Amino acid sequence: MPRIITFDDIDDLAIGSAFLGTGGGGDPYIGSLLCKKAIAAHGPVSLVTLDELPADANVFLAGGLGAPTALVEKLFSIDDVHRAVSALERRLDRTATAIISFEIGGLNSTLPVAYAAMRGLPLVDADGMGRAFPAVQMVTYNVYGVRCMPLAVADELGNVVLFETCDAQTAEELARPVVSAMGASAGMSCYPMTGIEAKRTAVPDTVSAAIAIGAAIRHGDRNIPAVDRLLATLRSLPYYGQAYRIFDGKIVDVKRNTSRGWVFGHCHMQALDGGSAAEINFQNENIAVRVDGVLKAIVPDLVCIVDQETAQPIPTESLRYGQRVTVIGCSAPPPLRTPEALAYMGPAAFGESADYVEIERLMGDDNGERGLRS
Amino acid sequence: MPRIITFDDIDDLAIGSAFLGTGGGGDPYIGSLLCKKAIAAHGPVSLVTLDELPADANVFLAGGLGAPTALVEKLFSIDDVHRAVSALERRLDRTATAIISFEIGGLNSTLPVAYAAMRGLPLVDADGMGRAFPAVQMVTYNVYGVRCMPLAVADELGNVVLFETCDAQTAEELARPVVSAMGASAGMSCYPMTGIEAKRTAVPDTVSAAIAIGAAIRHGDRNIPAVDRLLATLRSLPYYGQAYRIFDGKIVDVKRNTSRGWVFGHCHMQALDGGSAAEINFQNENIAVRVDGVLKAIVPDLVCIVDQETAQPIPTESLRYGQRVTVIGCSAPPPLRTPEALAYMGPAAFGESADYVEIERLMGDDNGERGLRS
Repeated sequence: MPRIITFDDIDDLAIGSAFLGTGGGGDPYIGSLLCKKAIAAHGPVSLVTLDELPADANVFLAGGLGAPTALVEKLFSIDDVHRAVSALERRLDRTATAIISFEIGGLNSTLPVAYAAMRGLPLVDADGMGRAFPAVQMVTYNVYGVRCMPLAVADELGNVVLFETCDAQTAEELARPVVSAMGASAGMSCYPMTGIEAKRTAVPDTVSAAIAIGAAIRHGDRNIPAVDRLLATLRSLPYYGQAYRIFDGKIVDVKRNTSRGWVFGHCHMQALDGGSAAEINFQNENIAVRVDGVLKAIVPDLVCIVDQETAQPIPTESLRYGQRVTVIGCSAPPPLRTPEALAYMGPAAFGESADYVEIERLMGDDNGERGLRS
Repeated sequence: MPRIITFDDIDDLAIGSAFLGTGGGGDPYIGSLLCKKAIAAHGPVSLVTLDELPADANVFLAGGLGAPTALVEKLFSIDDVHRAVSALERRLDRTATAIISFEIGGLNSTLPVAYAAMRGLPLVDADGMGRAFPAVQMVTYNVYGVRCMPLAVADELGNVVLFETCDAQTAEELARPVVSAMGASAGMSCYPMTGIEAKRTAVPDTVSAAIAIGAAIRHGDRNIPAVDRLLATLRSLPYYGQAYRIFDGKIVDVKRNTSRGWVFGHCHMQALDGGSAAEINFQNENIAVRVDGVLKAIVPDLVCIVDQETAQPIPTESLRYGQRVTVIGCSAPPPLRTPEALAYMGPAAFGESADYVEIERLMGDDNGERGLRS
């Protein structure tokens, strides 16, 4: 029996996907408003599992492409997403029967809910990352053989650009400058697929996982610190179970540079007693965390900065000097840890010279003493 | 009775359109090879006048977009043009019945001949500029109301990008970075139109004008200097008749900067007796010429640098220190001189602060003494 996403699930989804978004994807508040408006107008959204999805379903991806810093000022609109999806439907002469998420992270996990509500279509409880990544080719759909093309981007002025490229990397290279020219954010659709292809390539159950994570942060036993509630929930999920509290401290420096349609930068933190320091570098999403120079977690494993008191995830563009934060790391879903996937979304894809080492090995039983010095 | 473009017309067309290209559009030799190969394989091309064109013709533009400096090393291919035109035909569900040129300048006047030969379609004896310009919106099709969209660009790897934009300026802004990412040259089609629209908006008889100009440069009375033959032919044509020998000298400095898919720069010349100096600035095409600081000709009027002995036009990317050159200026076709057209292709569109003044006023009867000091 399909689960329903109601108005009341949206705040949990927004917060949970902001956590899984590891800093990227824009302010979850914006996405939650779009969802609530769409559900109020069109009713709740059915959430179907990959198992329930018909093999011949026409699954269309609904989302956005852009730099989180731009999203703060230049809002996404469901109309832009609709123009992008419609361009694909027209090109392929197929009509969507289900909507799927590109990534579970920030706006790209709430936009599909809003869009599915508008179209009256079910949303698949799955995505292509089980987290968020900054580029079109960094997705399990691509890793496991769904063609990226055609890819459409659409802006708020009615401009639509359709890319038919030889591979996903090229789609990224050609679409990114267009999105940059559109103001660094645009509606997007790509990786049109059948139900069979979705079953084979998507990361299952990630929409409901995001809702569970958001619920742990927002509700639950008030006598347990929010960060502990969050860690307990992560450890109870099929993925993300290797979850660690990596660092506590305050932000002492943030550098950000919005360039070529992305935001690049790093965040430095210091323990309140001044004894220890941590650094996180990011490209839209957090890439790696090092404590006193020792690597503690690296992509595709998740590195998240949350408020120390509330466990609310802090997106890249909201990091500020003086914030009291906790860095949480957790294991990526298994489909992201294969050699095929690491070729697209491992450390080298982000210019990191460090090899990928699973967070559970980096953190060890003694909570980090076995970390690798970089 | 339609005229035929044969193998023997190609060298004249290539040289004539390089002259009308006012420095832009790439080496005419490359385009002539493409044309000769296509005509050898598919036979000659019928040239139909706008008057002869059926009102319900499906007229498709075939050409390329890019920076002339890139064209020297990265050749255009008819296959790329075909992918671009096909993307438009598929999108519009119409099949081309005639081919038209975007501009009469360099490769964009020879590519349509080669493509028309390949498709077995007539070429319209007309274009959208009567010269060459560096941007998609700088065309009479746009000025007089044909929609630019859809616009397609295609590269040699099989990538095709289709733009459906709200106006031609936006198409330019979104397509240029894609072409830049494709290596600064790509096949292109846009401004799909009916015969009626072509009749209303195109600059007539420019393909045959280019052939006549090329013939004047390459053949004719050997007792008359080539530059004089060229000037006499320009003065005999329906347009371009206000033609002047503006400067003779040698090139003493050339600056070029390939940026954002264009080549920007300037060329300084000095009279052989050292008494007088001239400067031409360009953005793909030559924009204006000043002699000793006095403006002598400015866009949309044509400014062309030719070899002093042979009158062979010298494209922007072939300008070299020490070349003995003559600068020729001539009047633009009347559709380019209207206020509507000047808004798109007048001096301000190139960042020039000078107002447009017709070359015949700048040069005056006394060949320049009335030029405006800038």
